[in-house]
Amino acid sequence: MNQARQIEGHLYLEDLRVGQRFSSGVFRMDESRIKAFAAEFDPQPFHLDETAAQASVFRGLAASGWHTAAVAMRLLVDGLPFAHGIIGVGGEIAWPRPTRPGDTLHVESEIMEIVPSRSKPNQAFVTVKNTMLNQSGEPVYVFTAKLLAFKRAGGKIE
Amino acid sequence: MNQARQIEGHLYLEDLRVGQRFSSGVFRMDESRIKAFAAEFDPQPFHLDETAAQASVFRGLAASGWHTAAVAMRLLVDGLPFAHGIIGVGGEIAWPRPTRPGDTLHVESEIMEIVPSRSKPNQAFVTVKNTMLNQSGEPVYVFTAKLLAFKRAGGKIE
Repeated sequence: MNQARQIEGHLYLEDLRVGQRFSSGVFRMDESRIKAFAAEFDPQPFHLDETAAQASVFRGLAASGWHTAAVAMRLLVDGLPFAHGIIGVGGEIAWPRPTRPGDTLHVESEIMEIVPSRSKPNQAFVTVKNTMLNQSGEPVYVFTAKLLAFKRAGGKIE
Repeated sequence: MNQARQIEGHLYLEDLRVGQRFSSGVFRMDESRIKAFAAEFDPQPFHLDETAAQASVFRGLAASGWHTAAVAMRLLVDGLPFAHGIIGVGGEIAWPRPTRPGDTLHVESEIMEIVPSRSKPNQAFVTVKNTMLNQSGEPVYVFTAKLLAFKRAGGKIE
């Protein structure tokens, strides 16, 4: 499998292997968008107001963890080119440190496990560890995702 | 502890116990907002286009799982009234079924475990299982969250 095909975005189950790695593009966190997202979904003072945030455990304005997670998804949609898209069943998440205004973020992904579906022979569950890093190389978000992947042959979606 | 105090939103560590339950308000998923969220953070056809969604595993337009997660957070900000806010370290997430346009959602929360912090005596990690249900009582999202809680006495935030 060549790199170009990865970028084209049609990786079927037959193309995936444990240990395979992917790297996303870069996203810059914008302060006004941090506040707008928080106002809609996570209206807590440390996501909305610099002064309040200084007095909180975050010690300064921090993006909602769900904004960080949503930005990671945006990066993965282009950066993790599974055929039929990125369809997550669930997973584990962690926010080891805050995401700040001006941070430039990218996601490094690695396939950890591939488990065939018992009920649907053309599918498998693929565990992918996605680590989002800031411009200093510090992890800000880790999403160990259980994703669906599909075989190329018999590509009927059940 | 009386119910009014819960609603006022200042539950300290001393007020929390394993088995304690909370119920959020209700949120209605709007189709145009589903598509706008997806366009910004999760631009995959099954979140953007009804026809494409019908041909996908979702069998119809489905909200991004991150939109669902963000809406759950919005409900928890009012529905889970921890003092100093809802500060998540991480947790496990699952999306057992899609969220659809017009769904009316609420979150049921239960405290599963309370573990004192080893390094910070005025803090504890509180595991809360949050289950989001649709209007038919079906779970659409489960977030088993590890949250920070703070003691009332010695309320210095470290």
